[in-house]
Amino acid sequence: MKFTLEKKDSQSKARAGTITLGHGPIQTPIFMPVGTVASVKGVHQKELREEINPDIILGNTYHLYLRPGTQILEQAGGLHKFMGWDRNILTDSGGYQVYSLSANRKIKEEGVKFKSHIDGSYHFFSPERAMEIQRSIGADIIMAFDECTPYPCEYNYAKRSMHMTHRWLDRCIKHLKEVPEMYGYEQTLFPIVQGSTYTDLRQQSAEYIANAGALGNAIGGLSVGEPAEEMYAMTDVVCAILPEDKPRYLMGVGTPINILENIALGVDMFDCVMPTRNARNGMLFTSEGTINIKNKKWENDFSPLDDLGVTFVDREYSKAYLRHLFAANEYLGKQIATIHNLGFYLWLVRTAREKIIEGTFTDWKNKMVKQMDKRL
Amino acid sequence: MKFTLEKKDSQSKARAGTITLGHGPIQTPIFMPVGTVASVKGVHQKELREEINPDIILGNTYHLYLRPGTQILEQAGGLHKFMGWDRNILTDSGGYQVYSLSANRKIKEEGVKFKSHIDGSYHFFSPERAMEIQRSIGADIIMAFDECTPYPCEYNYAKRSMHMTHRWLDRCIKHLKEVPEMYGYEQTLFPIVQGSTYTDLRQQSAEYIANAGALGNAIGGLSVGEPAEEMYAMTDVVCAILPEDKPRYLMGVGTPINILENIALGVDMFDCVMPTRNARNGMLFTSEGTINIKNKKWENDFSPLDDLGVTFVDREYSKAYLRHLFAANEYLGKQIATIHNLGFYLWLVRTAREKIIEGTFTDWKNKMVKQMDKRL
Repeated sequence: MKFTLEKKDSQSKARAGTITLGHGPIQTPIFMPVGTVASVKGVHQKELREEINPDIILGNTYHLYLRPGTQILEQAGGLHKFMGWDRNILTDSGGYQVYSLSANRKIKEEGVKFKSHIDGSYHFFSPERAMEIQRSIGADIIMAFDECTPYPCEYNYAKRSMHMTHRWLDRCIKHLKEVPEMYGYEQTLFPIVQGSTYTDLRQQSAEYIANAGALGNAIGGLSVGEPAEEMYAMTDVVCAILPEDKPRYLMGVGTPINILENIALGVDMFDCVMPTRNARNGMLFTSEGTINIKNKKWENDFSPLDDLGVTFVDREYSKAYLRHLFAANEYLGKQIATIHNLGFYLWLVRTAREKIIEGTFTDWKNKMVKQMDKRL
Repeated sequence: MKFTLEKKDSQSKARAGTITLGHGPIQTPIFMPVGTVASVKGVHQKELREEINPDIILGNTYHLYLRPGTQILEQAGGLHKFMGWDRNILTDSGGYQVYSLSANRKIKEEGVKFKSHIDGSYHFFSPERAMEIQRSIGADIIMAFDECTPYPCEYNYAKRSMHMTHRWLDRCIKHLKEVPEMYGYEQTLFPIVQGSTYTDLRQQSAEYIANAGALGNAIGGLSVGEPAEEMYAMTDVVCAILPEDKPRYLMGVGTPINILENIALGVDMFDCVMPTRNARNGMLFTSEGTINIKNKKWENDFSPLDDLGVTFVDREYSKAYLRHLFAANEYLGKQIATIHNLGFYLWLVRTAREKIIEGTFTDWKNKMVKQMDKRL
């Protein structure tokens, strides 16, 4: 993996760069659409490629491990071939899903025992297992196995957990050297900074992670319910320590505003279920603000979905039509809203990149943040 | 509306023709995908246009009347504009949906009182109302308001009902003259032959309908549970009477085999929810037979969905991947299966047309019927 820093913003810590991986270049800042179980819900790979156009998407280790399972994925020649996606894929390590299971898992130094949400069967993930599974999946970027602490988190718990995440990282690095790549392309490990919302822990963790010397680094444990200001404060602290010449990935973030603010703090990569999940509930993100398309006010608004016109759905369908599809509970409504939101998120990071390169990022960001805060 | 008969098969009653309507030509035989409530479930209009490529689709008067309602449709400038579909649309009259409601409707000479399946509110459809609503919807082909009898149906009921359908037709024709077209293009009425599975009634009805002198004619009340042989017998009787120089539309039919057999009997137009509804349950129609993609046998079959490769889904996705999507209950699975099935149905009628024109229809039809009868 190669990372080239192309431009640094003079008024903020925003950067534009290019990550080069086995399945092509990734221009940063980038937003990675979430394809939990080998599918970005409701979106054809063709639409993802031709309309939304991300250089990388995300898969979930926990979900893929349960279904279709590593045996099928290996027989298929990896997740890319299985799902028909020839650009890059990043897989989370399962740490976040394990955190979400709360009552259905038990965390120990050795690893995590958890109960499948599908059939109640018991499974065990360790740092070593998480590396093996991600090798089988065939992700281009593999995430270290970590514990994602909840918010709020008691200081001592956060500290103990952070140290365990660090020890787990060492085990990940060690084990990955012993488990060969399977499909003939590079699979790069990103370690994850933890430390909850405690500045000293975040600093300690960022130093530990920076010292691991990985080719890219991630910030985890944020976007779990803390106020945005706390998230930004932590990102800021961590980005000051993580090496500048390596990409920084802020996991699970966030709203369009969160993304722009974190770009300004030096983050290069993002993922979040928000554009897809909220789309299925009728919430549209636009450059002018958010829309609840279920509202009666859109019933006879026959204007195009979004004047920005990023994808075909913005140009081909009207607000009134989309509102009707949601009212009639037609799945096409969810499909349209999903393509719109992902198209908008990718437009947002592409435009941020352009503005960074042009040198006008900060003004544009401030204007956009104000606009996008509205409810239409 | 113009209908040009281009070729008649010498070994069967199959015909190839072209219907010309306000939204372009329709090459026959044709299958019309069902877009019940202004959406072919799970399929973007762009995919319908570019991949499935029908010259005409069907909308349901009953559903569109309830949601979004004629007021919204009129404000939008008709259904075509509302949903973003610039080819032809046929609307059924609501007769079939009213029949499906069974317990929730009361049929009288004046019309039908029914209870909405959405909110339980009461509504009244008469032949006159059905014409007005279809004018508002803006369909290119408007269906007469009829009573669709169930199967089996007692002779005297079928006879009385048929006569009422004929009287209703007269009221439709009369009222349509008094209600102007709304959107500047022609809206053509097709009357409907009824008579259940009784040869004498079907003959009587076909004569009545033929005498009405409409530009196209339909056969209703079939595909409601009767054996295929009875359906074919009735189609045969009716096609012998309906004028040869006008298109014949067999409503609600059917399996790929039913379609080919009825083409051989002189039918030009079809519609059915089977390709879309069965797709959502994981049933794929192919030229080699039907597939239940949920079966474990497809779990590691990484071959393309269908070698025929009619649409992008057949070429881009594997059987194993589609099986996974159904197993994981991912909606993309339903989307893929729907596009596949509709693509196949349209391929089937396009190929039937080619074979009729080539003069090889009957041999091809017999071979296909045998192949498609298999379960893979």
